[in-house]
Amino acid sequence: MRLTTMTDYSMRLLMYVAQHPQRLCTIAEVARAYDISEAHLMKITHQLGLCGWLETVRGKGGGMRLAAAPADINLGAVVRSIEPDFFLVDCLGSDTVCLLTGSCQLTSIVSGALRSFMQHLDRHTLADLLPATAKAVAKPKSVIRPVTFGRRLTVAAS
Amino acid sequence: MRLTTMTDYSMRLLMYVAQHPQRLCTIAEVARAYDISEAHLMKITHQLGLCGWLETVRGKGGGMRLAAAPADINLGAVVRSIEPDFFLVDCLGSDTVCLLTGSCQLTSIVSGALRSFMQHLDRHTLADLLPATAKAVAKPKSVIRPVTFGRRLTVAAS
Repeated sequence: MRLTTMTDYSMRLLMYVAQHPQRLCTIAEVARAYDISEAHLMKITHQLGLCGWLETVRGKGGGMRLAAAPADINLGAVVRSIEPDFFLVDCLGSDTVCLLTGSCQLTSIVSGALRSFMQHLDRHTLADLLPATAKAVAKPKSVIRPVTFGRRLTVAAS
Repeated sequence: MRLTTMTDYSMRLLMYVAQHPQRLCTIAEVARAYDISEAHLMKITHQLGLCGWLETVRGKGGGMRLAAAPADINLGAVVRSIEPDFFLVDCLGSDTVCLLTGSCQLTSIVSGALRSFMQHLDRHTLADLLPATAKAVAKPKSVIRPVTFGRRLTVAAS
């Protein structure tokens, strides 16, 4: 049972950026820190920007920062926005034809388990992922710009 | 977010067999019913036998049957026995090296969500997956042989 690498790396990228609230972070430094390819992180950063979790600044000296305080970035919401689907079993997909469709309870029981999973994540924010020292220096809510969902952003070259 | 196809098909195979308690089922008929390859089902049946969920009878006229009553086959236990791992994020694996290991809470929060997921499945059995008509004819517990874990079984050719 797995989340996609995209979701895994998204959470780690957000954690990294949250721990450097005093400056812009670059894709290159996150790639070095986690030993992840820059191309992969470029795609992830773009997606996190579209979903409104990151803001980016173009050009020389540019980079990324959180678009909200860590305590305002809900983990369940991040996972829902990045994970492509939650078809834990085939019959949760919309185009599945199964001889048991409509009579078996597999989808409803698996959906219930998934709901329990997401409800647990919904009770946590990015702030809960950070070590105590990082929480102490995390950017306060008052100076964070509002989250902008669906905005198309470009990530600065590092 | 996905369970493996192995787990998905395992639950469907168990459901099929549970709905035909009065006779042995063959891999060929399950393959036809779900439009799944026989080779794939052969592997799954073998694994379900090893885990003690199925019993098989060799030779002509042979096939498979449940090794316990549907109400005694717990869904959480089935998923745990078939799913190869639950490393929802990389850092849940044992050989992961991450610069945040030991200081971040990602593993504990994701593990908590996974625990909620499994606890939901633990509250259900194979009997809960069956349509009402199948429950009525499901093999009663009294005539079921005891579950034999770790037994190596051969599935009869259909």
